[in-house]
Order: sequence, then C-alpha cells, then structure tokens
Amino acid sequence: MDHRKGPRRRGDELNQAIFAAALDELTEVGYPRLTMERIAERARTSKASLYRRWAGRAELVMDAVMHQLPTVDDLPDTGELRGDLLTALRAMAVTLNSPVGTATRGMIAEISGDSDTVRQQRERFIERRNQLMVGIVRRAVARGEARAGALSPLVASVGPALIRDHFLSSGGPIPDSVIVDVVDHVVVPLIKAV
Amino acid sequence: MDHRKGPRRRGDELNQAIFAAALDELTEVGYPRLTMERIAERARTSKASLYRRWAGRAELVMDAVMHQLPTVDDLPDTGELRGDLLTALRAMAVTLNSPVGTATRGMIAEISGDSDTVRQQRERFIERRNQLMVGIVRRAVARGEARAGALSPLVASVGPALIRDHFLSSGGPIPDSVIVDVVDHVVVPLIKAV
Repeated sequence: MDHRKGPRRRGDELNQAIFAAALDELTEVGYPRLTMERIAERARTSKASLYRRWAGRAELVMDAVMHQLPTVDDLPDTGELRGDLLTALRAMAVTLNSPVGTATRGMIAEISGDSDTVRQQRERFIERRNQLMVGIVRRAVARGEARAGALSPLVASVGPALIRDHFLSSGGPIPDSVIVDVVDHVVVPLIKAV
Repeated sequence: MDHRKGPRRRGDELNQAIFAAALDELTEVGYPRLTMERIAERARTSKASLYRRWAGRAELVMDAVMHQLPTVDDLPDTGELRGDLLTALRAMAVTLNSPVGTATRGMIAEISGDSDTVRQQRERFIERRNQLMVGIVRRAVARGEARAGALSPLVASVGPALIRDHFLSSGGPIPDSVIVDVVDHVVVPLIKAV
C-alpha cells in the first residue's frame, strides 16, 4: 500500500503527523538508528515532503520536541515563584527521561559536524525554553516576588541548564530531590537577588 | 622493538606516562577511536598493566583529566571573588576546548551503558571540580565577601555546570563574554545572596 495515497492533509495537520511519527520512531529505534525514510513512512508521507521542511533528522527532531514544550500559559499558575519553577523543571525532567533525552545525547555527540541550520534550530529551541522561564519570572515580578532585573535570558537559563547538566552527566532519571535543591538553593535565591 | 623492555618505572611515574599517552592519543585520534591498546603502546607499557589500574578507557580518560584539574592552591589568589571565578572558569573553558571536550561529548553519548566503575569515577571527578569552586568560595568567605552559607557543593557547581552546558549545546569554543556574563550575572550574585 502506498501511504501517500491517503486524503490530502494540510500543513499543520501534516506537521503534527510528522512530529508524532518522529517521536514514535525515536521511542522505538533510538536516535542513532533514526532515519528520515522511516519517519516519512510512519507519517504516511514522502521523504521529499520531509526534506522540504527540514534539512535533516536533527532539525526535525528538535522541531518536534520544541512543539511539545509548554508555554508559560500551559503551566498552572501556582501563585508563587517556587511552585511555578518546580512545575516547569519537573516537566523538563520528565521530557529528558523520555526518548527525547536519548536524542539529546545523540545530538550532542554529533554537534561538531553541525550545519548552520542545526545551529539555528538549536538557538530557537533554547530561546523557546528560556521564554518559558522568563514567563515564570514575569509572573513573579507581577506578584512582587522578584525585581524586573531578574527578567534576563541568562538568569532564566540557570534552572534548565542545571537540570540538563545533571541529566547529561549522570545516567538515569533526575531525582526529584535534585530539582527541589536546584529551585530552593539556586534558582529562587538568584532570582530574588538580582 | 618491545616497548615493555625499558627500565622499570614506579607507580607514579608510570601513571603520569599513561595519562600523557591517553591525552596525546585523544588529541591524535579522538575519543571514538581511542583504545587501551594504543594508549599502552604509546606509554610503552602493557595492556594488562592498564587494565590492572582502570576498568576501561572511560575510567582512564576521566582519571587523566582529573589529574590535570587545578586545585585551589594552583590558582593565583586574585584578591577578589570575581577574579578567582573568572580564572577558574576560563581554565575550564580552555580544557573543554581541547580534545578533552571531544572526549566529554563521546562519554556522554555512551553514558547509558556506563558501568558502576565509570559512574563512581564520574562522581569523583565532579567532586574534585566542585572542591575547586568551594575553595574559591572559602577564600571569599575569609575575605568577608560571602557568607558561610555559600559553601555548598550545589552552589559551587553552578558556574562549571553553566559553562559545560554552553559548551555541550553549542559547537565551538566558549566566548569569553559568556564566562564574564555567567560570573557577573549568575555566580557572584548567587554566592553573595546565599
């Protein structure tokens, strides 16, 4: 059966199908064996249609993961900075503990051969992730818990960077106690200090 | 010529020769192609003698890099927290920008298959690195620049973790402006806050 003979799907719907296929493939075969061909087959589209959108699998996977990232509006407002940070970093730990984490390791190993498009895609990804954290700080500023000086992308990146570094330099899932310590002993004191 | 027929070297001297050989090999062939056999040959010793000391190449490389790490007494006392932090993180950036950085990426890619000995070795490595930063904070506490509350391994890990995360998630060398921003906008405010 030729998968491409299904009803014509429009841009967004097709993108969603491709993202889902990429993440499913990642779960099944892992990053080293992930190919554009298998993703196309699984999404019932053509390889050409994938390559019209993404230069390669690294770009496609990062885009798929980025579209899963919550925005600050997706996160419940817990009413306090600490609770908001815990919610966001716990969600990040869950994602890293999925095949997305394995893909992250795989992409890091190959980073020296990265093309400009991969680099740009990575910057967009980090920007989106930082935006989420800046959004949380913005809520804290509005509540009077933090000063506007804390609204910097660098300060916003500290929590995610520490969780990611812990994930990358240990094998397994991130213990919740690590997330709580990072929030209580690093991120909250820093945000309140600057 | 059989390299093993040279004059008998004692423990420390032999270890130094093996570490030097491991780092030279790393520079020449990179982590993926690094083998115990080639390191042994280069250090003019036997593979068996390597395996008596290390369970595998990951353990040996981490040990070699750890022995290169400066201790706080190796670092000049600049007379202020900011200067000490810049010196330590700049030294770290130089190391990451060497073949050691490539090895770090290689080890991260393989981390899920890590043995207990690799895990223990990694913990010792991170402990040593954090000790250096705790030593810098201790100087700052002695000068009255920081409170004793800042003497925690977690707070000490923030600077190195951010530099490492930047290195891992971008391809190239770490710009000095990143190090300065991390020190001025994250590490110093945090240490002075806790």
